[in-house]
Amino acid sequence: MGNFKLTSVEEFEAATNRLLETGAKVGADAWQLRVKNQTPHCKFGEQGVCCRICSMGPCRITPKAPRGICGCDVHGIVGRNFLRFTAGGSATHSDHGREICHTLHTVSPDGNYKVKDPEKLIRIAKEWGVETEGKDIYDLAHEMSELALLEYGKPFGTQRFLKRAPKHTQELWAKAEIEPRAIDREVATALHMTHMGCSSKPEALIRQSLRCGLSDGWGGSMCGTEFSDVMFGTPKPVDTEANLGVMKEDYVNIIVHGHDPSLSEMICDYCEDPEMIALAKSVGAKGINVAGVCCTSNEVAMRRGIPMAGNFLQQENVVLTGACEAIVVDVQCIFPALGPLSKCFHTKFITTSPIAQMPDSDFIQFNAETAGENAKLIVRTAVENFKNRKPELVHIPQLKQKATVGYSVEAIVKTLDKVTNSQVDETGTTKPLIECITSGVLRGAVAMVGCNNPRVRPDSAHIELMKKLIANDIIVVLSGCSAQAAARAGLMDKDAKELCGAGLKRVCELADIPPVLHMGSCVDISRMLILASELAKDSGLNISQLPLVGCAPEWMSEKAVSIGNYVVSTGIDTFLGVEPQVTGSSEVVGLLTDGIRDWVEAAYTVEKDIDKLGDLMIQRIEEKRAALGI
Amino acid sequence: MGNFKLTSVEEFEAATNRLLETGAKVGADAWQLRVKNQTPHCKFGEQGVCCRICSMGPCRITPKAPRGICGCDVHGIVGRNFLRFTAGGSATHSDHGREICHTLHTVSPDGNYKVKDPEKLIRIAKEWGVETEGKDIYDLAHEMSELALLEYGKPFGTQRFLKRAPKHTQELWAKAEIEPRAIDREVATALHMTHMGCSSKPEALIRQSLRCGLSDGWGGSMCGTEFSDVMFGTPKPVDTEANLGVMKEDYVNIIVHGHDPSLSEMICDYCEDPEMIALAKSVGAKGINVAGVCCTSNEVAMRRGIPMAGNFLQQENVVLTGACEAIVVDVQCIFPALGPLSKCFHTKFITTSPIAQMPDSDFIQFNAETAGENAKLIVRTAVENFKNRKPELVHIPQLKQKATVGYSVEAIVKTLDKVTNSQVDETGTTKPLIECITSGVLRGAVAMVGCNNPRVRPDSAHIELMKKLIANDIIVVLSGCSAQAAARAGLMDKDAKELCGAGLKRVCELADIPPVLHMGSCVDISRMLILASELAKDSGLNISQLPLVGCAPEWMSEKAVSIGNYVVSTGIDTFLGVEPQVTGSSEVVGLLTDGIRDWVEAAYTVEKDIDKLGDLMIQRIEEKRAALGI
Repeated sequence: MGNFKLTSVEEFEAATNRLLETGAKVGADAWQLRVKNQTPHCKFGEQGVCCRICSMGPCRITPKAPRGICGCDVHGIVGRNFLRFTAGGSATHSDHGREICHTLHTVSPDGNYKVKDPEKLIRIAKEWGVETEGKDIYDLAHEMSELALLEYGKPFGTQRFLKRAPKHTQELWAKAEIEPRAIDREVATALHMTHMGCSSKPEALIRQSLRCGLSDGWGGSMCGTEFSDVMFGTPKPVDTEANLGVMKEDYVNIIVHGHDPSLSEMICDYCEDPEMIALAKSVGAKGINVAGVCCTSNEVAMRRGIPMAGNFLQQENVVLTGACEAIVVDVQCIFPALGPLSKCFHTKFITTSPIAQMPDSDFIQFNAETAGENAKLIVRTAVENFKNRKPELVHIPQLKQKATVGYSVEAIVKTLDKVTNSQVDETGTTKPLIECITSGVLRGAVAMVGCNNPRVRPDSAHIELMKKLIANDIIVVLSGCSAQAAARAGLMDKDAKELCGAGLKRVCELADIPPVLHMGSCVDISRMLILASELAKDSGLNISQLPLVGCAPEWMSEKAVSIGNYVVSTGIDTFLGVEPQVTGSSEVVGLLTDGIRDWVEAAYTVEKDIDKLGDLMIQRIEEKRAALGI
Repeated sequence: MGNFKLTSVEEFEAATNRLLETGAKVGADAWQLRVKNQTPHCKFGEQGVCCRICSMGPCRITPKAPRGICGCDVHGIVGRNFLRFTAGGSATHSDHGREICHTLHTVSPDGNYKVKDPEKLIRIAKEWGVETEGKDIYDLAHEMSELALLEYGKPFGTQRFLKRAPKHTQELWAKAEIEPRAIDREVATALHMTHMGCSSKPEALIRQSLRCGLSDGWGGSMCGTEFSDVMFGTPKPVDTEANLGVMKEDYVNIIVHGHDPSLSEMICDYCEDPEMIALAKSVGAKGINVAGVCCTSNEVAMRRGIPMAGNFLQQENVVLTGACEAIVVDVQCIFPALGPLSKCFHTKFITTSPIAQMPDSDFIQFNAETAGENAKLIVRTAVENFKNRKPELVHIPQLKQKATVGYSVEAIVKTLDKVTNSQVDETGTTKPLIECITSGVLRGAVAMVGCNNPRVRPDSAHIELMKKLIANDIIVVLSGCSAQAAARAGLMDKDAKELCGAGLKRVCELADIPPVLHMGSCVDISRMLILASELAKDSGLNISQLPLVGCAPEWMSEKAVSIGNYVVSTGIDTFLGVEPQVTGSSEVVGLLTDGIRDWVEAAYTVEKDIDKLGDLMIQRIEEKRAALGI
């Protein structure tokens, strides 16, 4: 423990720089160079004042041209762009959830996919009013998958999972008329409202942005998380490692990257297949090493302890090690740059999903029905590629940290049960955590999520904020690339308790947890919604009263905006370190940072100075405590 | 007849200029001014090479910056933008169709909405395999509405209406893997594929563009058309008038504008209400005059002979007459400019749909359940506003033309039956038309559709092309703003046969039709798909073999691109007078103008020189004739 030391962002960067030298040698492009080429960015786009929604334009709002050709003003244009940005994210997350529901439709006792958590399936079925008694678990799975798929397209009614929220939250949604109907319908409505000649009233556009976000968080994403747990197991604490040092020079290295666990789970299975391992040995490797990038990594780390090679802005680095036999991707956040980059090395860039087809890749289509053979072919392709490695290009930075991951809500509650006096207290609740907060041992909690973005020094905002928060006795729950930043830095090592304030340190020791808890991938932010709901129900408070805030300091994707919208709509103040492209409209900015508070009791705060962002979060938490008199 | 004379585009423009003088007097803005302010347009946007899909950017492709930050190249960026453009249009059209299906769910014998064409409902029910025998027509309507709504969100299967296409067409779609699944799913898939880090392969993006378009044309739009006919009646030939001269100085003028007939049908009903007429007289008007703009106009013209005041770029003109008591809008193609413009006059700008909420409007929400009282309130509001008219601002240009409209497929077939020798020939088919084409009396047919766009001298392309085509014995079927351009010019006057070649003139006389046939609103382009399918089936040819092309010479909206995609996907070569924003990618241009021909036997031609565009269409028609040896 005395030896414990975080890996610094400077060390991350030194490792990256060394890899970029290899890149330069082989003439590879890199995001660092492309950022330079693309700077400065178009100011119209950055401010959200450019409209490309019809072909009369493009139109751009300036003092001399205050309206587009159709007469839309800057507030309408910015509002439309924001709603479309949300819709892109909501559709994307939710479509991932849909794929999971379709995969659930294929489960069978001897098939590629099985029900690994029948208890959870039965629990959800009961919630949905589905008869479970005496029903074969696979029949139930198929029935539930069809019901879940209808959540995307049912003609009437609102999302089933909304009922998981506290009653007060549900009432707010009803009053604000933002209860999401069928998931896809909210996306289609968003596009219709923003079509030429439809809505230009910011209030209407922002309201739909919230509704469309809610259809993701309490709809598509929640389906994705819940039914992934049913098929692949609900995560529980497991040890793993993180950073590029998890790649192994003398092994076949297969990197799984993307989001949907249906592919990566199969790949992991086949990497353990004796036939494949034998094949690897026959080509001169010691075995097969699989590691992850982005949310695919989070999925298999949470459930299998598969090591995490890196997050979003590290994806090129894994190829630059020269030791990556295959980077196997499914959907989302995959740099098209991996195509040409992989051609500079021996790496196979294997795309698998019709949703994400890219030039310069080997497309091996992955289907739930043929998942086993697809995965085997992919693993075989990677193994056979080992012999093409160019030893002179191999360099794996020796940086890695230990991490304990796997904190689903179920796992958190179980962890809390351990510190409960079961003679006196109720188990299976979040009450011990509430007591810590009420007593002031913990000051509050922050949900930190989201991507990397070159607009912020990569990972620095995530890591610096976490350090500040835990030092102030604020527990942090994480997902997505934020979680990986933490793991790579070492903050998910239980020894990181040393960096905490006295209160949080005591909690970490008592509960045997790291001070920042890995709750999963970006769809798993749905877990955070449930955790917040449980805390509200167990405390008798409204979610907005809890000393709890959300934060995405380095976000970049449309999904992140959809997430932001459902998090604020759930009553959780959300803090951003990157500006959404809305600064051109005072009305839209006013709504997002203040006006929506009247509807959902929470709003956005944007602050690019990361240290100030941290102060603002702490301040908000303390304000909430003060309001509660704790 | 000797007196017959088209209204020229110069006369249109003179009328507009006179109205703009009034506008200048009251300080009104106008699209003509806004176009000046917005010119020149951003070249990056025009070429489709600007990517705003994540907040790392915006990125713009130039020779010095050939890739975005994620590494996406120009082909991926252009392809994504094109797919998103399509998705916007498909979602919008289809959501209109969905509203119609929801309205169908409310029909009752004594309700606001009724089944006016039970025969058509039964016909569709049989097509869909629904038992109709002995079933109450309203029960059947409700059952069908639920099935139709599931076309938007069903988890499995493809669109029901695809089966209406010729077998060969269906086979092409299956082979190209572009059979659309649930309508909303294709929209969500489009957004997912174009999300940061998903597809960047032009072929994949264009394929999904076609599929997403097909889900509109053979899905959402077709539902919109078919079930509108069920509720409001299938159009049959009816006489009306067109152009601003249909407004009446001494009447209360109510303009209906937008797309969804659910609102305008009710408004028309209440404009005939004796109580409302009495009210109008009590405020000094002679009565109530209702006229239409855009596709709402097409809907009520086709079914009720309601006069057409103008098309897309005329919408401000109706307010500028100073004689418009209310412009009542539902969804799509409504200038937000109408808000501030109406404030310069006494005009009430009444928005009615949650989908299209605009500043500076009176929002009177319209619901199927309360449609009657909503409509009555709107009409009353308009009538009571008559007294606020400022006589010094009133000027109605005295331009109008007679028009015969209402050519649904059913009406066309019935018209053809009249020229059939029922002793010898089969009735109820398109065969007489095929014979005219085969014999060379007609050279072919053009489906001309789409909007106005200030990039083209308004209406001039529509009208000049029609004149050229009919002079060459090519019959023209029309929808949307193209149809209104024709009507305003006088081309839908049966006397316009004088402008035709000898063959078409003979057909017009024999069948007693104008040389250009009004087939409806923009969703009604689904009627053209059915007509083309019937021609193919009746002739034993593939659709792509028919001497038939599509044309959108002045298009501007996302809907138009969705339409283009489903028209080419149906095997009909499509000619555009405005460039889609894809010119930055040779690969995307190559696919759209050539490559997709391998999948669907048709492609796009883009030509901004309108005269050349006409020549190219004639040339294509003659090529098809030559290939058939006719």
